[in-house]
Amino acid sequence: MIKKYLLAPGPTQVPPEVLLRMAQPIIHHRSPDFTPVMEEVKEGLKWLFQTQNDVLIMASSGTGAMEGSISNFMSPGDKVITVNGGKFGERWGKICKAFGVNATEIKVEWGEAVDPAVIADLLKKDPSVKGVYVQASETSTGVAHDVKIIGEIVSRYPNTIFVVDAITALGVFDIKPDEWGIDILITGSQKALMLPPGLAFASVSDKAWRMNESAKCSRFYIDFKKERENLKKSTSAYTPAVSLIIGLQYVLRTLKEEGLENIFARHSLLAQATREGVKGFGLELLPKTSPSNAVTAVKAPEGFDGQQIYKRLRERYGITAAGGQDHLKGKIFRISHMGYCDKFDVITAIAGVEMVLKEMGYHGELGSGLKRAEEIFIKNI
Amino acid sequence: MIKKYLLAPGPTQVPPEVLLRMAQPIIHHRSPDFTPVMEEVKEGLKWLFQTQNDVLIMASSGTGAMEGSISNFMSPGDKVITVNGGKFGERWGKICKAFGVNATEIKVEWGEAVDPAVIADLLKKDPSVKGVYVQASETSTGVAHDVKIIGEIVSRYPNTIFVVDAITALGVFDIKPDEWGIDILITGSQKALMLPPGLAFASVSDKAWRMNESAKCSRFYIDFKKERENLKKSTSAYTPAVSLIIGLQYVLRTLKEEGLENIFARHSLLAQATREGVKGFGLELLPKTSPSNAVTAVKAPEGFDGQQIYKRLRERYGITAAGGQDHLKGKIFRISHMGYCDKFDVITAIAGVEMVLKEMGYHGELGSGLKRAEEIFIKNI
Repeated sequence: MIKKYLLAPGPTQVPPEVLLRMAQPIIHHRSPDFTPVMEEVKEGLKWLFQTQNDVLIMASSGTGAMEGSISNFMSPGDKVITVNGGKFGERWGKICKAFGVNATEIKVEWGEAVDPAVIADLLKKDPSVKGVYVQASETSTGVAHDVKIIGEIVSRYPNTIFVVDAITALGVFDIKPDEWGIDILITGSQKALMLPPGLAFASVSDKAWRMNESAKCSRFYIDFKKERENLKKSTSAYTPAVSLIIGLQYVLRTLKEEGLENIFARHSLLAQATREGVKGFGLELLPKTSPSNAVTAVKAPEGFDGQQIYKRLRERYGITAAGGQDHLKGKIFRISHMGYCDKFDVITAIAGVEMVLKEMGYHGELGSGLKRAEEIFIKNI
Repeated sequence: MIKKYLLAPGPTQVPPEVLLRMAQPIIHHRSPDFTPVMEEVKEGLKWLFQTQNDVLIMASSGTGAMEGSISNFMSPGDKVITVNGGKFGERWGKICKAFGVNATEIKVEWGEAVDPAVIADLLKKDPSVKGVYVQASETSTGVAHDVKIIGEIVSRYPNTIFVVDAITALGVFDIKPDEWGIDILITGSQKALMLPPGLAFASVSDKAWRMNESAKCSRFYIDFKKERENLKKSTSAYTPAVSLIIGLQYVLRTLKEEGLENIFARHSLLAQATREGVKGFGLELLPKTSPSNAVTAVKAPEGFDGQQIYKRLRERYGITAAGGQDHLKGKIFRISHMGYCDKFDVITAIAGVEMVLKEMGYHGELGSGLKRAEEIFIKNI
């Protein structure tokens, strides 16, 4: 028997209580059975998003909401700025291209955070830019971009919206959309929300809603305005993913019980222990600065293949972490510590990495990473 | 205690075995755990769709696939024919409008089937029409359009595709896309597939793929070509709704065991017993001809409010059926007999209707509808 451990940056582990909750008999979405669920969920999402704005719910992967944050607010030919510091940042550009939106892409080396001054300069040169699109946490590199500072910059421009993909950030670290000038904040179900994939969320500010009025990109299924109108009546434009929303109701209750501060502190501690643990074993992180508390990207040591590390973790130890994507493939591996994760998930991950690399001939000393993680946990209990 | 009975035309009942199957620990979609699931599911879907074409899987409601059947094959300004014989037929026109596609809408009285000759005439007059869009089963009225005959007509035109929304038809009655000239066949998870909502499916013919090459409507999240490329590798373009696909794997196995002929015969029998049952109680069906075996739309008797019947069924007897939509609201109620349904679901529905209407002062004789249903069942066992 090999027990299985899911430590990939999404889907993340779903608590067994939530799985069983979703295994209840299905209910009809246009019936009074479902209305109280939606009412509770829409309030809970506002709490989790730390916003007074409506938080829309869509039956799609997170990419659906990313698309919607462009197609519902832009017209073909509109100018936007996108930050490409990884596979998901790159996706903004691809979506813009698909909708005829004119994107100026800021290319950031994968593994580094964007310099907010670059965005400030571009906006200064061309204030007709209608939107700035960035990740709060770039899942492919484990880097957090400073969305607070960028929000301060963008909010000076009355006709420019600031859109943040927080798919691996919301419920991981503190983001205050209303205070920081984030007009659209996006997340998905299968990350810190501890649910299976299939739901996407987006909060939308009044500034963005005004832009929605004149936005001419084609859209139908992912139509934010239609969803907003339906959300007011605690329903949705099209058939919602009922079972996932039932799970969400329960997840939001447990998150509320834990409290936002505790949730952020937990992720911060787990991330710190993971980073110090792998460094204690002699490994190097991919991010030079500003690592995300959602996922830790670790460089494969010189002469070792990151994909082999990923594979061996799975095959020999039952741990599903993640490898690198695109040109980072083979160069890194990634360990998630978001959502339904605690100290012993981190211990498991570091132990797995130590044993796998030792078997592959790496020089590090077994237990040296674990020791560092334990020291951090003891200090913070 | 009031036990609950879900007899609405989607979401339909999910078998408890499937609910528990989906309650297994979540697995990662880009891992070897998921590959065999996808391999089995893609073969199973071809079997269920009775097609040699790829069947794409999307994380969305059925409307997502309806949108995709337009946005992936048409360019703004292209001419299509849509059949509006109910709420879902009307949706084709709305999607076309959203994408700048020029739709000629055939308005059919809600409750009637389209006359295929009207489509033939329109195509004859203008062979430059690029697509014909129709429902196999119009859920809002309980009417089946004759997609076999329409397929024969459309297939004479080499540059016109035939798109069929079979969201409440696939797995209910016989549809042979490859023989009948159906280029795109669409369904969703929450109907005859007995799963929670959140998955949409579409099979696509070579004729349609050729049209896809030059189609210029904007699209990103719902991109059939990208899904096809990923499906070849038994994966998906974006994070799939993993838990629903795990459920699908199991559902497809049970459907295969039952066999297509038996599945269609079961639905036919349940539909017949429902129709004869309500007629036996003195009620009238909405469809004058060609009722769908998925759902039975019953007229509220003169002087009775259909919404009241729906509400009383729910509140007094725990039965969730459906009312009418838009201008049919109050005029009809609908009983589904698709998916995880058997004889006693029909008996339950008819008994509920009899008791509710009797309480409301209707003249019919209690048991008269049930008797007719029993007679039909006895004859067919």
